[in-house]
Amino acid sequence: MEARSEVDIVPATVADVPMIFQLIRELAEYERLTHEVVATEEQLREHLFGARRYAEVVLAKSHGEVVGFALFFHNYSTFKGRPGIYLEDLYVRAQHRGQGYGAALLRHVARIAVSRGCARFEWSVLDWNQRAIDFYRSFGAAPVDGWTIYRVTGDALAKLGS
Amino acid sequence: MEARSEVDIVPATVADVPMIFQLIRELAEYERLTHEVVATEEQLREHLFGARRYAEVVLAKSHGEVVGFALFFHNYSTFKGRPGIYLEDLYVRAQHRGQGYGAALLRHVARIAVSRGCARFEWSVLDWNQRAIDFYRSFGAAPVDGWTIYRVTGDALAKLGS
Repeated sequence: MEARSEVDIVPATVADVPMIFQLIRELAEYERLTHEVVATEEQLREHLFGARRYAEVVLAKSHGEVVGFALFFHNYSTFKGRPGIYLEDLYVRAQHRGQGYGAALLRHVARIAVSRGCARFEWSVLDWNQRAIDFYRSFGAAPVDGWTIYRVTGDALAKLGS
Repeated sequence: MEARSEVDIVPATVADVPMIFQLIRELAEYERLTHEVVATEEQLREHLFGARRYAEVVLAKSHGEVVGFALFFHNYSTFKGRPGIYLEDLYVRAQHRGQGYGAALLRHVARIAVSRGCARFEWSVLDWNQRAIDFYRSFGAAPVDGWTIYRVTGDALAKLGS
């Protein structure tokens, strides 16, 4: 899928936080995970544009209108000896799909990865989302087999970290 | 498994880079992934202690001797609106296993996660490593089901980012 419509991809600023918050909620709805969203605009403002920035955001705009976004941060491979980029969110608004904006966002973040000397560009995909899987495979992405992510959260994390 | 032996867990300094490099190679050997290690000491020095630091390292020491290490960095959940910690490497040297050092390292990083307001503490486990899986489950860690990581690397990344 190549970009067929005009699109500008620009770094988000703190003034974009309400829009980013709205896009995150739309993404959660699309992923059927609305019940997991507890973030607030204030948290996003602090964590994306405050003293310690945990992630970077770029917005896709067409004729001045925000049509999607990507949010990412760095990870690090000790075997490769190089950083990577982990794409936490990639989203194109419902009314703007099928026009190449997702591919444009993906290429943009890949260019950032290459320019920063990253060895890897990766993200998680919901196993039921065949449309997304086909889309990502078309760019040469492959599943990381043989590994499973384990997570400690909530009470178990409070206990482990006490 | 509780710490039974005396252990100090301390942040690594740039003087520890040769030791960290040695531990990474031992970990790769343990994971049967030695063929994947292309990192150099110089890269680790730059990426762990240079102008842009991609990860943090703590060393476990017993009676002054390094017995293991943990290497981690932050990720970010837009749904939670909070950072997390991703544990890239946790390793205890062969001759020092079974003495609680791994648990001590895990608890130490969990305490850092809690103190920094993280919502999650997570890592990847090799599917064949039942000993590790049992160990992590004993601390309340659970597999993240329903998601698969997709990765672009090598030539595919160069092409996507060109």
